Amino acid sequence: MTTRYKMTLAYDGHLFHGFQSQPGQRTVQGTIEAALTKMTKGKVVLVEGSGRTDAGVHALGQVIHFDYPGAKIPPERMLFALNSIMPLDIAFRQSEIVDESFHVRYNAKGKWYRYRVSLDHFVDPFKRFYSGHYPYPVDLVKMQIAARDLVGTHDFTSFTASGGQIKNKVRTMYYVNVKKDDTANELIFDFICSGFLYNMVRILVAMLLEIGNGKRPRDDIPRVIAACDREQVRETAQASGLFLYHVFYGEIPQKYRQDLE
Amino acid sequence: MTTRYKMTLAYDGHLFHGFQSQPGQRTVQGTIEAALTKMTKGKVVLVEGSGRTDAGVHALGQVIHFDYPGAKIPPERMLFALNSIMPLDIAFRQSEIVDESFHVRYNAKGKWYRYRVSLDHFVDPFKRFYSGHYPYPVDLVKMQIAARDLVGTHDFTSFTASGGQIKNKVRTMYYVNVKKDDTANELIFDFICSGFLYNMVRILVAMLLEIGNGKRPRDDIPRVIAACDREQVRETAQASGLFLYHVFYGEIPQKYRQDLE
Repeated sequence: MTTRYKMTLAYDGHLFHGFQSQPGQRTVQGTIEAALTKMTKGKVVLVEGSGRTDAGVHALGQVIHFDYPGAKIPPERMLFALNSIMPLDIAFRQSEIVDESFHVRYNAKGKWYRYRVSLDHFVDPFKRFYSGHYPYPVDLVKMQIAARDLVGTHDFTSFTASGGQIKNKVRTMYYVNVKKDDTANELIFDFICSGFLYNMVRILVAMLLEIGNGKRPRDDIPRVIAACDREQVRETAQASGLFLYHVFYGEIPQKYRQDLE
Repeated sequence: MTTRYKMTLAYDGHLFHGFQSQPGQRTVQGTIEAALTKMTKGKVVLVEGSGRTDAGVHALGQVIHFDYPGAKIPPERMLFALNSIMPLDIAFRQSEIVDESFHVRYNAKGKWYRYRVSLDHFVDPFKRFYSGHYPYPVDLVKMQIAARDLVGTHDFTSFTASGGQIKNKVRTMYYVNVKKDDTANELIFDFICSGFLYNMVRILVAMLLEIGNGKRPRDDIPRVIAACDREQVRETAQASGLFLYHVFYGEIPQKYRQDLE
């Protein structure tokens, strides 16, 4: 008898070697699995994540599920129990018991990633682990106009690190937004997509910054998409600016469906 | 021939063993002195700070001065040169050349410290190095009323760790403010004083939290001040919530002179 828990969590990725368990490395998945194994006094509990995040990448709304053996624990007590034994760079936010047909990866309808870029010449010491860095002039409106060319259903082969095992690289981009936080002197990029390929957000941000800086024409995106060639965008923005912001399990809300506009 | 520079800087204190140079420890002063010695190709340059901050304590507006040997460098070039060789947890904000009669510690008219306290049961992973923690109920208005009893010229012996070398513990508290940041679920304490004793802000915050939580009567402060006895307040809030916010070299602005109201 096991009980399936779906839990939402935040983590500061800068001291983790990514989400996925790896022998000898401190990872988010490995840390949670070790905590659960402690709670069950040795029974191994496997954690499934909605997706992996790389070393240095953060989460505000990562989602996991796991099957807890033995007596059913109320979800709010599971939340409290796990938070009590987590290191301070992981915090669970929500907990619910779900049917065993629920799968955190297969049931996800889309994901929201946010990327923050500091435009300061020298990055604020308090942001060095929590932003990318682009100390060059950028034209916000140019990036905003160009970003709309990403919306829709496309083959995103040009925007993923080569060598991945996933063959089908067609995804639907529902929403892209670029804004400036003037107080922080940061750009904030938001992407909601049916699924993200390896390094996709970081490559997209690097390309949009090149457009903003005038190194690449404003109307270059349709050409790059059509090329299906990673060599078209050689840069990848730093891991430190990337946050897994939210995972959608219901339909994507209408206000984020730019592809239907 | 040397030139005296006055420079304002921010630092993230969580990976420093405090401000003051100590053999074998990573400190802010030691890091800056090592950088300046590199710039002068080996001539030792000593850095004076407006005051020390402890291990884990941060600064948004620490001020230092030093005498740079050799040719005069324009202040904005000094700023750029130092930032270029600083580790990412120190950032210089302002630079000016001052007369040799200026001394960063003796000329300071007052200092502003800010203390942030997370009220979350489990602290946000992104704030764990940048806030103290008090997961108990607090009455904000009680703390605000009590805090006013700190304003004025008092002997602050009850609010400093014993064993300090400074005999005269009379200081003038110009301004105390307690507010709540609802978005962050944090309390923010601001103190502007003619000078701070060792651990003074962290002890004051611990006492105000006890008043807010009802563990100590709201009108206890005059009694504690009069007692001149550190045993009256045994708690000290954590270093992580403390920020040296600003150092005043001109007169304290009228709007921060609650002692004159």
